[in-house]
Amino acid sequence: MTERTIAFAGAALDRADHIRSDADRLAGLMDWRARLLKLDGLDPVITPEGGLEWGTLADASPDSDLVFLGLLDGKGCFAEVSGAASHGAGPPSPRTWSAIATLGHSDIATYGTARSLVDWHARHGFCARCGHETKLAKGGWQRSCTNVTCRAEHFPRVDPVTIMLVEHDGQLLLGRQPRWPERRFSALAGFVEPGESIEEAVAREVMEESGVVARDVQYVASQPWPFPSSLMIACHAMADSADLTIDYTELETARWFTRDEVLAAMQERDGAPFIAPPPHAVAYHLLSWWLSR
Amino acid sequence: MTERTIAFAGAALDRADHIRSDADRLAGLMDWRARLLKLDGLDPVITPEGGLEWGTLADASPDSDLVFLGLLDGKGCFAEVSGAASHGAGPPSPRTWSAIATLGHSDIATYGTARSLVDWHARHGFCARCGHETKLAKGGWQRSCTNVTCRAEHFPRVDPVTIMLVEHDGQLLLGRQPRWPERRFSALAGFVEPGESIEEAVAREVMEESGVVARDVQYVASQPWPFPSSLMIACHAMADSADLTIDYTELETARWFTRDEVLAAMQERDGAPFIAPPPHAVAYHLLSWWLSR
Repeated sequence: MTERTIAFAGAALDRADHIRSDADRLAGLMDWRARLLKLDGLDPVITPEGGLEWGTLADASPDSDLVFLGLLDGKGCFAEVSGAASHGAGPPSPRTWSAIATLGHSDIATYGTARSLVDWHARHGFCARCGHETKLAKGGWQRSCTNVTCRAEHFPRVDPVTIMLVEHDGQLLLGRQPRWPERRFSALAGFVEPGESIEEAVAREVMEESGVVARDVQYVASQPWPFPSSLMIACHAMADSADLTIDYTELETARWFTRDEVLAAMQERDGAPFIAPPPHAVAYHLLSWWLSR
Repeated sequence: MTERTIAFAGAALDRADHIRSDADRLAGLMDWRARLLKLDGLDPVITPEGGLEWGTLADASPDSDLVFLGLLDGKGCFAEVSGAASHGAGPPSPRTWSAIATLGHSDIATYGTARSLVDWHARHGFCARCGHETKLAKGGWQRSCTNVTCRAEHFPRVDPVTIMLVEHDGQLLLGRQPRWPERRFSALAGFVEPGESIEEAVAREVMEESGVVARDVQYVASQPWPFPSSLMIACHAMADSADLTIDYTELETARWFTRDEVLAAMQERDGAPFIAPPPHAVAYHLLSWWLSR
C-alpha cells in the first residue's frame, strides 16, 4: 500500500510556500492567467469531463478574499473565501461525495486542501485572543489580528486523529457509530489530545471506547481528511484480551471479526457480516493492509 | 527505543475523559481532596525533592477557571487558568528548562499537558467565528461561545509537526536555526499543512529547506511538545542526491554528517563536529534510533 492510493493526498499542485510571504510575487500571479477553483459553498464544481472546474479571477466577487493554493503548470491557483462557505464544519454533504466520486486522485487532494482552507477562513474572522476582526495574510495561510495592541497571528488548523485496528487472536475489533449507514463497521478513532503521543492516544481511545488494553501500537499510514481539517493517523495495535466494555455514548456497538468476515466485507460478498468503510476512507486502506499481511 | 523514554509522554495521570462531560461527577471531585498543580505563569513549581508542587483548590483565585487534568490515586487534579499565563505562545523560558531537568518522566508529561491547556485557554478567550467571549466548558477541554446566536464550540489545538532524518550514502542531513545554541545541529522540521499526509509534509519540508528530494518516508516515533501544543511526528527518509539548495530564510545552514560524526556528537566527545539536540527533544531519540539500527 502506498500513499498514492489514499484519497485526499497526492495533489499535483506545487504549494510554493515561499511565494506566500512574497507580496510582489503573489500579486504578480494574480493576473489573467491565474486560475480560480470553482466551489458551490464548500462543494466542488465538476466539469462535464469529471474534473474540477476552474475559472479566472474575474469570476471572484470584487471584495472577496483569495487563498493561494499553489502553482499548476506555472499558473497561480486560488480559491475564494466567501460568506456562503461559512455554513460550518459539519460532515460533507451527499453532493460532495457524489462529486468526489467523479474526480481523479490529484483533483480530490486539491479540492480537499481548498475546502479546509476556505472553511477555516470562514470560521476564523475574529481573533481568539482579543475578539477583534482578523484579516487574511500570507496568501491565505495566516490570519492576522487587526487590533494594533494584539496583532496575534493565527494559522490554519490541522487536527491529528488516531484511527486504529486492534487485533486479538487473529480477529479485529471494529465498531459502528449510530449515524453511519446501516451495517457499516469501521476502525475505532479519536482526536489526539494535548500532552499525548500518537501511541498514547491510540491506547486511550481503545480503552475508552471498548475497554480493551492496546499494546504494540504500530504506525501504518496517514491521510488528510478535509471535514473540516483532520490528519488521520492510521495504526495497528495488539490486545491481550477479547473482553469488551463498550462506551455506548460513543459507539452503537463494537465486536470482533475474523479474517474471513473482514475479507467478505471488503469484497462486498453476499452474506458478508458487515459493510466495509468506503475506499476513500483511510480505514479501508488499513483493512486492505491487514488482509494483505 | 520505546515511547517511555520520550520526554513529555508517559503521564501517570488517568485523563478520565468521561468525567469531563459529567457536571455532577466533576463538581464532586472539586472538594478538599482535589489537587491543584502549582504554576508560576507557565513555569512549573518544583518541590525541594524535585517533583511537581501541588496545592489544594483553596490556593486558586476565587474567580479563576479550573482545568480538569485527570485522576491521580483517585483524586481530581486541576490547573488554574490565570491571566498571568497569557504571555503567549513563545518558546519555553530557561527557567522552564531548568525546572524540567529535575522532574521525573511522568511529572514532565503532566506539566506539559497542563501547560498546553492553560496556555490555550489564556489565548482563546474569544470566539474565532463571531468575536464574542467564550467560556470554559467540559472541565477545560472545550470553550463555548457565549453568543446565543453562535454557540460555537472550540477545542484545544494540537499542531502536528514532522521532524525528519534524511539519509544519503550513510550520511545524515542536519540543519541549524540561527536562534539555537552555538554549534547545535538537529533534524529538519515543519508543520503539517491542511491537505497533506505526513509523508507529503516530510517531503515538502525537506525540499523547501534543503532542495533534497526525500523518498521512502518511514514513521519512527511521536512526542507531545507543549510549546505551545505540537505533536512531533519523527520520521526517516532516504535521498538520492547529496546536493543542497539551502533556504537561508529558514536555516542558518545545513550539511551532511557521517555516522562517526553523529556518534561523536551524541557521546559529547571532545572534537565532535556539532552539539546534538538535548535528550528531551525527539530529535535526540531519532538520532539514537538511527545509530542503533
